[in-house]
Amino acid sequence: MSKKVEQFRKERERLNQIVLAGDNLNIKRFFGLDSAVYRDGALDARTKELLGLVASLVLRCDDCISYHVIQARDNGVTDKEFDEVMSVGMVVGGSITIPHVRRAKQIWKEMEK
Amino acid sequence: MSKKVEQFRKERERLNQIVLAGDNLNIKRFFGLDSAVYRDGALDARTKELLGLVASLVLRCDDCISYHVIQARDNGVTDKEFDEVMSVGMVVGGSITIPHVRRAKQIWKEMEK
Amino acid sequence: MSKKVEQFRKERERLNQIVLAGDNLNIKRFFGLDSAVYRDGALDARTKELLGLVASLVLRCDDCISYHVIQARDNGVTDKEFDEVMSVGMVVGGSITIPHVRRAKQIWKEMEK
Amino acid sequence: MSKKVEQFRKERERLNQIVLAGDNLNIKRFFGLDSAVYRDGALDARTKELLGLVASLVLRCDDCISYHVIQARDNGVTDKEFDEVMSVGMVVGGSITIPHVRRAKQIWKEMEK
Amino acid sequence: MSKKVEQFRKERERLNQIVLAGDNLNIKRFFGLDSAVYRDGALDARTKELLGLVASLVLRCDDCISYHVIQARDNGVTDKEFDEVMSVGMVVGGSITIPHVRRAKQIWKEMEK
Amino acid sequence: MSKKVEQFRKERERLNQIVLAGDNLNIKRFFGLDSAVYRDGALDARTKELLGLVASLVLRCDDCISYHVIQARDNGVTDKEFDEVMSVGMVVGGSITIPHVRRAKQIWKEMEK
Repeated sequence: MSKKVEQFRKERERLNQIVLAGDNLNIKRFFGLDSAVYRDGALDARTKELLGLVASLVLRCDDCISYHVIQARDNGVTDKEFDEVMSVGMVVGGSITIPHVRRAKQIWKEMEK
Repeated sequence: MSKKVEQFRKERERLNQIVLAGDNLNIKRFFGLDSAVYRDGALDARTKELLGLVASLVLRCDDCISYHVIQARDNGVTDKEFDEVMSVGMVVGGSITIPHVRRAKQIWKEMEK
Repeated sequence: MSKKVEQFRKERERLNQIVLAGDNLNIKRFFGLDSAVYRDGALDARTKELLGLVASLVLRCDDCISYHVIQARDNGVTDKEFDEVMSVGMVVGGSITIPHVRRAKQIWKEMEK
Repeated sequence: MSKKVEQFRKERERLNQIVLAGDNLNIKRFFGLDSAVYRDGALDARTKELLGLVASLVLRCDDCISYHVIQARDNGVTDKEFDEVMSVGMVVGGSITIPHVRRAKQIWKEMEK
Repeated sequence: MSKKVEQFRKERERLNQIVLAGDNLNIKRFFGLDSAVYRDGALDARTKELLGLVASLVLRCDDCISYHVIQARDNGVTDKEFDEVMSVGMVVGGSITIPHVRRAKQIWKEMEK
Repeated sequence: MSKKVEQFRKERERLNQIVLAGDNLNIKRFFGLDSAVYRDGALDARTKELLGLVASLVLRCDDCISYHVIQARDNGVTDKEFDEVMSVGMVVGGSITIPHVRRAKQIWKEMEK
């Protein structure tokens, strides 16, 4: 795994600890739910990661996109499939998604190494 | 097909004619692109419709949601799969998506008839 | 209670039944969480309704606004307080919130009756 | 002027009276500012209406779009110019703007009468 | 006050000077209004800061969140209250707010020092 | 041209190459369309850049804003005109646009050099 991706994962984990340290039950429940919806069900986890990726792209949330890019790679999504998800998000969300597509592709390439 | 769905399709078509009557080349190219990204490719059209559906849901575009709900039905998406797409969109986009989930489910049910 | 408000409540309840009928556990959990965060805690329910109201206003979700307007009234929020919440939302979210402020004030007035 | 446009203007005015009746100074100041930014300055009012129109389109605020469509017509914007504003907004904001473009074009046509 | 918070305040002040140097009357009026809505009124300044905080969170504006986090601390908001505001924003705005909650909590902790 | 602006242009170009390297036809078509809508037509390129600028501002896309700020300068937009575009965007999009106005003005000043 590339160094940048490793750093992203560690920082994310560190900050999650800070958020959860407050012991707010509803925040914890939301975090639980945020994991639950991506698990295998009628749709498999791989498809759900693509749903999470395109939703994050059109809402232009860089951290969310990075997370789902990593998950997509780990679930065996191919280069062609990845670009098609980007193309759907770009058409739905417009040119304002392009800076996020640029960064998404950069992480995608980072993970090739 | 239910009457409401039929009305939605007709009204959409009527207004598209008005938009395209202006003969603006770039608008026409955008409409072409908007069809092209959902066609079978590395990902099949069915999966792409689910991507379009979740993207429309988190961006809270009712007409877009209605369109992709109809397409999803026509592509054989099941009840369980549909609910899972809704659940991902709801968690990504928050409680503000709920009114749109309500309307999406209503159209989904309309189409059962 | 005014007729319009009564209709809004009934239609909302009817559609919630349709959403929950699918028996998707994560959707049910989200609905539970959506109730839980507004309950009395370190902040009282009244303040939390104002938070829900301003959040719904800046995100321009009419159904969400209507719901929180009703809740705010039921929690004894005054006319002056209500307008101050509107003014914060309007300055944070800009002139695009104005159509929603108009509709929010209309429901607020409806409930006076 | 078409009947629909006249109704839109009247309803808008009626609701503005309700909003301003609360006598909240900051809301009044915001309304004043919302008129001021569109007046002739270094840029003329006509150009500013086009800015207001494209901003309303990408933020998908139907009432705001309707208002600026009417203002654009009143400022002598041509059919070709109008379509070019729509095309910029559509590319910047993506396919989720299309339902709003449809409705904008419908009002634009209404005003021809 | 922590060094990071001090830097944030100075940079914000420096850039505000650049914005206001243009001598555009409407921009100045907007800045005035942006201060005015948070002052004590029917609702106290403390409650209004919480409204500004949750509105900034759901709209995912990091600089706005940082500003209101600092203001909330200065107004004596407690840890538990802060987490409850975060939980409301998170449920209303969805998982895309989580990266902003992470950063908000980090600044909140910074200010403990 | 200032060093920062030069860096922005180079990084943008480098990442565009990464995005386009995937050889996805629809992404390429979208990039083509994204250039086409800003070319001289019934509205001149200068006015269209202002449309792109205000649209990017209200959608709060920093990279898009930077790009259009540079284009506006290159098209001879004046200081007063630039501030008026900012003022329209600020009123339409609210105080959440202010951090982006700050950064836009900073790049605008950078380019004076």
